[in-house]
Amino acid sequence: MKQYATQYELELRENVIPFWEKHAPDREFGGFFSCLDRDGSVYDTEKFMWMQWRIVWMFAELSSTFEANPHWVELARGGFDFLTRHGIDDQGRYCFSLTREGTPATAAYNVYSDCFATMGAAALFRATQEPRYRDEALRAFGVFQGRQVNPKGQWEKSLSGRRPMQKMGYFMMQLNLALVLEQCLGTLDHREVMARNVNYILDMFWNEKLGLLFEYATLDGQFELESMLGRHINPGHAAEAAWLLLYVADLLKQRAAIERACEMLLRMLEFGWDKQFGGIFYFKDALGKPHFEIQWDAKLWWVHVEALVATALAYKLTRRTEFASWFQRIHEWTWSRFPDRDYGEWFGYLNRRGEPTHMLKGGKWKSFFHLPRCLLLCQKWLAEL
Amino acid sequence: MKQYATQYELELRENVIPFWEKHAPDREFGGFFSCLDRDGSVYDTEKFMWMQWRIVWMFAELSSTFEANPHWVELARGGFDFLTRHGIDDQGRYCFSLTREGTPATAAYNVYSDCFATMGAAALFRATQEPRYRDEALRAFGVFQGRQVNPKGQWEKSLSGRRPMQKMGYFMMQLNLALVLEQCLGTLDHREVMARNVNYILDMFWNEKLGLLFEYATLDGQFELESMLGRHINPGHAAEAAWLLLYVADLLKQRAAIERACEMLLRMLEFGWDKQFGGIFYFKDALGKPHFEIQWDAKLWWVHVEALVATALAYKLTRRTEFASWFQRIHEWTWSRFPDRDYGEWFGYLNRRGEPTHMLKGGKWKSFFHLPRCLLLCQKWLAEL
Repeated sequence: MKQYATQYELELRENVIPFWEKHAPDREFGGFFSCLDRDGSVYDTEKFMWMQWRIVWMFAELSSTFEANPHWVELARGGFDFLTRHGIDDQGRYCFSLTREGTPATAAYNVYSDCFATMGAAALFRATQEPRYRDEALRAFGVFQGRQVNPKGQWEKSLSGRRPMQKMGYFMMQLNLALVLEQCLGTLDHREVMARNVNYILDMFWNEKLGLLFEYATLDGQFELESMLGRHINPGHAAEAAWLLLYVADLLKQRAAIERACEMLLRMLEFGWDKQFGGIFYFKDALGKPHFEIQWDAKLWWVHVEALVATALAYKLTRRTEFASWFQRIHEWTWSRFPDRDYGEWFGYLNRRGEPTHMLKGGKWKSFFHLPRCLLLCQKWLAEL
Repeated sequence: MKQYATQYELELRENVIPFWEKHAPDREFGGFFSCLDRDGSVYDTEKFMWMQWRIVWMFAELSSTFEANPHWVELARGGFDFLTRHGIDDQGRYCFSLTREGTPATAAYNVYSDCFATMGAAALFRATQEPRYRDEALRAFGVFQGRQVNPKGQWEKSLSGRRPMQKMGYFMMQLNLALVLEQCLGTLDHREVMARNVNYILDMFWNEKLGLLFEYATLDGQFELESMLGRHINPGHAAEAAWLLLYVADLLKQRAAIERACEMLLRMLEFGWDKQFGGIFYFKDALGKPHFEIQWDAKLWWVHVEALVATALAYKLTRRTEFASWFQRIHEWTWSRFPDRDYGEWFGYLNRRGEPTHMLKGGKWKSFFHLPRCLLLCQKWLAEL
């Protein structure tokens, strides 16, 4: 396993960071282009808040944990200035997108914009120790927490007939943010949130009998197997949750949670792996009934890189050979299909057979985040073996 | 061309209507099940308003224009009663979905619910001549018209930075509804709306130079080629628009519009056809840049059946051999892949290669509508040749 470390480090250093350093910064208006075609050319200039703050986070994080680089910190600072100047609405929420020039284009219907702002600002504090970044991280985190009761606000479409459901992603995000805040702000203030969310995710969303991590659960932790939404399974989300659970459970010495998260990861990889063409499905129905999304059988870069992170960490913590086998299997499938050796970076979207359906390197939902985070974490953890 | 008529009629009579007659009606609570698996078993009981009213429309329409059948009228009446009792919110709008029992589940964010209600109620008036159905058709149509200025209401997400855009689908729907109201209510009240919309769609959304029907145009009929939304092309929508344009232009003797709609249809089929695997793409980017939807290259039943309707009508009106060739090409591709000879009805979703990705016969977006409408119209028009 250790021998992979160099490959992950080189890919990050030579094939991924340079692509985004070169093509993403909008040197005229500030912020970043995330809609980058195969060769890095811009095919849309809209500035989607998730993508913008994730780029801020990644450049700042790299400078703190990969190698100190003032240029990356400058790029992150530039993003921060543009986004805090233009992106906040009159209720303190981040809107979902801006025009290239910085005029709000899409309203703040999505609470995860505030989450990625929290991450980006916190990482900038870690990289610079300037209090204004910590202040913005805590402010945005407070906005996210304040939106807990009705996260979608006026844009909520559910009515009384729909049974209230909890979303796994929400608790995974809480766990993620608490960890980032601890690492970046250097406080222990969020330990209790972390410990609580580890158990909550496993208690509420992990169904050991079926071997499935559900995306939706009722408020008392039941699964709505009679509805297609209740049966919705997202193996990539499960992998991402798995490594966050493992990382935090290890940090907090929650041994039972490590065991449970390992079991969850193994069962979900088994469930999500495509026995016919290889790779991990985007979505599945818990009972094998029709999935409501056309693209359920696509193979997405982020699903595969999150699974690499999860299996690498599970192996590091447990040394169980199943995790090394899974890592190698996913590694082979992923690295022989996603990387673009001609123009750099990786393709994002393959069909079930593993052939690219899109040439883009970035878009509304893909930027400088899952792939470099995977390469960063794996090169570190594998080298430490 | 004429020889196909029998095949279309038999498919409707023997393979499609019986499936929905048998599996769709909810005999306990009223309304219909639209989430039907391959064998007709129900995999979700949510009652999506588009799907519900389309089923009402189809059964009523079949009884008026295919063959008189009191059972079909009873099914449509039952749907009408359930939907008018449970589906209307305090502002008179149809909500987007109900639970099986009829409790509102999803709010009225989508204005097309009111449109399909208009169609369903109007067809019931045609089938029964009972005034209450005409009243509801005109009431729902009025609600749709009244929502013109801000169709999404509180659920609108666009802010000042986004240039206001017109949607082709909105005007296509107006055209469609005006035609349905004329045919079903037996008045000429909507002629002016029809004539106006024919020209408006062609003037605003058809770009002759590029040979593309755009989904979005600025308020003065420009195309935003620098944004991915502005470049969004939907060949199935273009085919559906084409036959509505042709039908109405023929009815109103708008000869120039017939010419233009024929040209549009031919260019859009050329653009939308997959030269590698056959079939018509779901979406494309006007300039060949990356499309923003993962599923752009899927092959959907409704796209193909709308293209059959359009080419059949274009051939009937013009007798140009290109349309017969296109009809035959689409017919071959469609009929050798979509029909399910084991359990009846057609598959809805194929991948780019033409292999089914879903076994469902109905769902959140597929019910008893595009396919039977195609079979109904084609058997009629082809027999008249």
